[in-house]
Amino acid sequence: MNPDLLHSLNSLRVLSVDMINQAGTGHPGIALGAAPILYALYANSLKINPRDPNWVNRDRFVMSAGHGSALLYATLFMAGFDISIDDLVNFRRLDSKTPGHPELGTTPGVEISTGSLGQGVANAVGMAIAEKYLRTIAADSLPKQKLIDYYTYVLASDGDLMEGVAEEAASIAGNLALDHLIILYDSNDVTVDGELKLSSSDDIIKKYLAMGFEVDYVKEGNEVTEISKAIERAKYNKKPTLIEIKTTIGRGSLNEGRSVVHGKPLSYDDIQNIRKKYKITTGPMEITENAVKYMRYSIANRINNEYTNWQSLYKQAKISSGEDIKKLIQFIETKSIGAEINSENFRIQNDYNEELRESNSKMLNILAERTKFFLGGSADISSSTHTKLYKEIEMSKKYPAGRNIYFGVREHAMGAILNGMSLSGLKVFGSCFLAFADYLMPALRMSCFMRLPVTYIFTHDSVSIGSDVPTHQPIEQLANIRNIPNLIDFRPCDINEVIGAWEYITHNSVPAAIFLSKDEAHILAGTNGKNVALGAYILRSEKTKLDAILLSTGTEVTTTYLISEELRAKGIDTRVVSMPSMNLFKKQPKEYQEKVLPKNAKIISIEAGSTMCWNYFTKYTIGINEFGYSGSKQDVLEKLHFSYEDILSKVEEYIKIKDNSTVAPIPDSKKTEVLE
Amino acid sequence: MNPDLLHSLNSLRVLSVDMINQAGTGHPGIALGAAPILYALYANSLKINPRDPNWVNRDRFVMSAGHGSALLYATLFMAGFDISIDDLVNFRRLDSKTPGHPELGTTPGVEISTGSLGQGVANAVGMAIAEKYLRTIAADSLPKQKLIDYYTYVLASDGDLMEGVAEEAASIAGNLALDHLIILYDSNDVTVDGELKLSSSDDIIKKYLAMGFEVDYVKEGNEVTEISKAIERAKYNKKPTLIEIKTTIGRGSLNEGRSVVHGKPLSYDDIQNIRKKYKITTGPMEITENAVKYMRYSIANRINNEYTNWQSLYKQAKISSGEDIKKLIQFIETKSIGAEINSENFRIQNDYNEELRESNSKMLNILAERTKFFLGGSADISSSTHTKLYKEIEMSKKYPAGRNIYFGVREHAMGAILNGMSLSGLKVFGSCFLAFADYLMPALRMSCFMRLPVTYIFTHDSVSIGSDVPTHQPIEQLANIRNIPNLIDFRPCDINEVIGAWEYITHNSVPAAIFLSKDEAHILAGTNGKNVALGAYILRSEKTKLDAILLSTGTEVTTTYLISEELRAKGIDTRVVSMPSMNLFKKQPKEYQEKVLPKNAKIISIEAGSTMCWNYFTKYTIGINEFGYSGSKQDVLEKLHFSYEDILSKVEEYIKIKDNSTVAPIPDSKKTEVLE
Repeated sequence: MNPDLLHSLNSLRVLSVDMINQAGTGHPGIALGAAPILYALYANSLKINPRDPNWVNRDRFVMSAGHGSALLYATLFMAGFDISIDDLVNFRRLDSKTPGHPELGTTPGVEISTGSLGQGVANAVGMAIAEKYLRTIAADSLPKQKLIDYYTYVLASDGDLMEGVAEEAASIAGNLALDHLIILYDSNDVTVDGELKLSSSDDIIKKYLAMGFEVDYVKEGNEVTEISKAIERAKYNKKPTLIEIKTTIGRGSLNEGRSVVHGKPLSYDDIQNIRKKYKITTGPMEITENAVKYMRYSIANRINNEYTNWQSLYKQAKISSGEDIKKLIQFIETKSIGAEINSENFRIQNDYNEELRESNSKMLNILAERTKFFLGGSADISSSTHTKLYKEIEMSKKYPAGRNIYFGVREHAMGAILNGMSLSGLKVFGSCFLAFADYLMPALRMSCFMRLPVTYIFTHDSVSIGSDVPTHQPIEQLANIRNIPNLIDFRPCDINEVIGAWEYITHNSVPAAIFLSKDEAHILAGTNGKNVALGAYILRSEKTKLDAILLSTGTEVTTTYLISEELRAKGIDTRVVSMPSMNLFKKQPKEYQEKVLPKNAKIISIEAGSTMCWNYFTKYTIGINEFGYSGSKQDVLEKLHFSYEDILSKVEEYIKIKDNSTVAPIPDSKKTEVLE
Repeated sequence: MNPDLLHSLNSLRVLSVDMINQAGTGHPGIALGAAPILYALYANSLKINPRDPNWVNRDRFVMSAGHGSALLYATLFMAGFDISIDDLVNFRRLDSKTPGHPELGTTPGVEISTGSLGQGVANAVGMAIAEKYLRTIAADSLPKQKLIDYYTYVLASDGDLMEGVAEEAASIAGNLALDHLIILYDSNDVTVDGELKLSSSDDIIKKYLAMGFEVDYVKEGNEVTEISKAIERAKYNKKPTLIEIKTTIGRGSLNEGRSVVHGKPLSYDDIQNIRKKYKITTGPMEITENAVKYMRYSIANRINNEYTNWQSLYKQAKISSGEDIKKLIQFIETKSIGAEINSENFRIQNDYNEELRESNSKMLNILAERTKFFLGGSADISSSTHTKLYKEIEMSKKYPAGRNIYFGVREHAMGAILNGMSLSGLKVFGSCFLAFADYLMPALRMSCFMRLPVTYIFTHDSVSIGSDVPTHQPIEQLANIRNIPNLIDFRPCDINEVIGAWEYITHNSVPAAIFLSKDEAHILAGTNGKNVALGAYILRSEKTKLDAILLSTGTEVTTTYLISEELRAKGIDTRVVSMPSMNLFKKQPKEYQEKVLPKNAKIISIEAGSTMCWNYFTKYTIGINEFGYSGSKQDVLEKLHFSYEDILSKVEEYIKIKDNSTVAPIPDSKKTEVLE
């Protein structure tokens, strides 16, 4: 190897393990083993401009093996991103630029938060889908020019590829022939618990071939040039590529090749040994100017012209008169899809009545007609979730600009792919039955952690789904999903609230879950799209005295309304509060919260799901805390004591109890947020 | 095809679609398409005795495509299980023997509940692991005889094989060379949303070859004999086998081969057409005696001798004097592992101090030494969860009786495999970090739905995990997992409570989750293993007046204890309640609940996680409702306002509030259960 390159590469290695020792925590194994892969990628292939880290046409790199963060930060520093040696010194410290695992928005050059294994591979598939989509519509507007044309790379460990979500996503990538996706497989035959063969003997090359990938193999993972050649070859493939690169975990360490080198700082002796082996004479957290320059020059030589050329192309495009290209430029400049839903523009007739999945379908299709930057799909259940964009075709190998994505029965990959797609600025949605939201919880959590504007559409949102079965009947899911930090939940009660949910979603960049009943919902007097942003509002006021507040969501609001009417005829005066978004309500000023749910009023919650989340407001809950049953809707509701009659009698029973001490919990002052 | 066979097969088809039409709901596509597969399996290969459906050495069959329930029930009826035509008439009705999807314990011959796609494949892998394990230890005790020696079959649809959990499990099956596992792949190129190619172009044969399977292919899925030949060939393989069987969804229907035939009853015309096509002249829900007899004879001819021979072998074994074989017989007869943990047998010194994962490790290893019927593993993190059985070897192709299972980074398959294993009577456990419990939620839900005695060990159970990162820091998981119906949660505060958790687990057959801190826990005065079964108990009484009850779990109990002491010095008198199991506490009689948490006392909960589940007891909660941070333990706790000082000052603030209206919610009388 060229001695300058060798010195630069080995400096990267030593700097990375220095960071880990400095922090007293981290993962030296991957840093020493996979350094040549990151070096090759950043120095010789990745199209980036460290001075313009958000360049829209840059290549994307995902460190799926997020525990390799030290290596990534050291690489970004050497590449010239706005990261200093001091930042590296602060590795893993609170509020540093260099957190324990890569975090979106924290470090220049970091494209996405990773750390939960497998997610990054699926995120990268999402990024590559978005790129191919945008590339295709850009090419439609600007024939023969390449405004959008970049590659997505992902570094995947053995652990990443074992996770089902990675395999689900790879299968989708193969089916869509994502030619600009390149998986760099850091193949070191070792996992946390020991040799890989203890848990896996997959032939990854053959497996990925079977999923429609091109494959390549680099026998000596220390050879930067060999890795670079393989990457350059991969760019010509018409399919996604997996390059298996044989590396040695902890290469150079006294424990190289063994799992003990994975997750703890190295001993003093080992660090000395490594310095000697790699001929690094600088002190801890020091690096020679030559080592840094060598990498920066490699990048600059490659990129400068390309970046300048792209900028002039972009300037030309900006003055172009085509309508499509104008919209594309606007999308790039504003990061906005250029379309929204406004409830004031809808007038819904008083006798309107339809299944809420159908109301939701209308919103999807209206939005889709207004902007090309809105798309999504379903985990093979669009025929039941009704999330198809009717005027659009399916996304396929042949039609990468199709806007109906067929994720297959792969909920988890759907979520993680949507996360990757949303980072491009596209507004995306995915759908499945609520009971199967469990399959995608890790991806949904990452949407929330990164606050990505992904919309999850969960239909069949209660046991009330007609003759179906306990496996398909959600119970705990409503509460559990609302319980994920940052998530905005919507459980509309009629079309007005569905419109309101989409108004919020199109005006705010938030991770959102919409829960939709399969039942028909008649429009209710007093519902209002605008009120959805308040989280909850008074739908039906008490007449003279407040015997109780009936607090409900979704299609149960209709039942609640009818019960309130029946009670009034009996002389019992109740207020009905619709709560389309529990988490938005919790963000309201205390004054508003107390206006809707006054202190010392008796609050009774009514929702066809776990009552866990309702105890925040009241101890008088009516819900379902056991698994459902196979049977007709009415039979199941009766069996679960959740029929109209059951609810009514429970409400009456609760109202009779003298103890009204069910005021809302005191909000934690620190955490009360005002609605943005 | 033999005309009698043909009539019998086609009668099965028509009976299945009759059931669906009778119920007005169901899935005719798979019933018509996959009937020859089930027919071939039950008539010609499956080792069953319909009069002894729990025969320990029977072959197992898992209908992973659970929506094919009508076909399964009709097959079981024809095979001679205790299912009548009336039962078939009641298909999908509440409390029938024939629920919408197969349910464990409801229908003779149904081995496991299915319906959530992908799970069944992984369950079958678990069953095959259990069989190979038991076969091996039985063979050690009874050389040259075959007391345990059966096959596990699973019918998997395209949708099943798309789910990541199926692929994760297949990879494990290949690695362990599960020679008695046979996947019958109902390959019909159609999914709910249309043609399979919209979402997948995997070469399944090559993919499974790459994962260490033998593969076979049946071109004409209507040919019972061809399918049977392939199954018989598969029995000789030294690896697991996948047989791809090309079928036509809805075969015989006017809509055959199209996705519309998947999930709705057929039209009247179509039923008439099908009767004609299949030459069935009996009326709806009728079947000829010949059709039934033909299948029953096929089974009887095959099985009778084998069953009788096995019974005499079993009789011999029962009088054998070997210690090992006695234990095996006892296990088979009693379905008990023959070992337990009893807290009265432990004496823990007053200054005992250790990480709870280490205390838990001791329980695992004590149990493992006492019984061979206890085993488990980890999703590649046993070095951190400390769940290795130290005196045992790893389970591998070569050592199928190894008791440390290396699941790899495949949490989801781990859960689903444990479900399958537990059905054999083995007591099993799996472990990973709590934050990654999200990956296995669908499997955990199925453990709970079936009430399987699977123990999930989740370590690193709060943000307090030392310099780690938000992706690895659980927040919402404690509440969300407790929220799954039937789950028994344990969050012990010291080794006494760890012992108590295992006492409960070894004396009860329940799905359980143990949450363990990574922190060291000093033994606390007043903890008691016996009290764990009560869910919560008074750990430290107030002295004279009850200013507040501090309710806590896990290692936060230590903090709480210290705070209580500090408050007493200030003249504030508090009671400390340890709640090692929230869900067990909720099952206690109301009197006990009110003794521990008296009405009108101010209750303050303290737990390092989402407060959602604590509002059941109080509105005065101290917890964490946002994502964690990357940083040192102390820095992170301070940032999240959860340091000792933060908690102390919050407690004081809460105590000052006059409103004591934080009595426990009124339990729903219907649902209060007394501890078994």
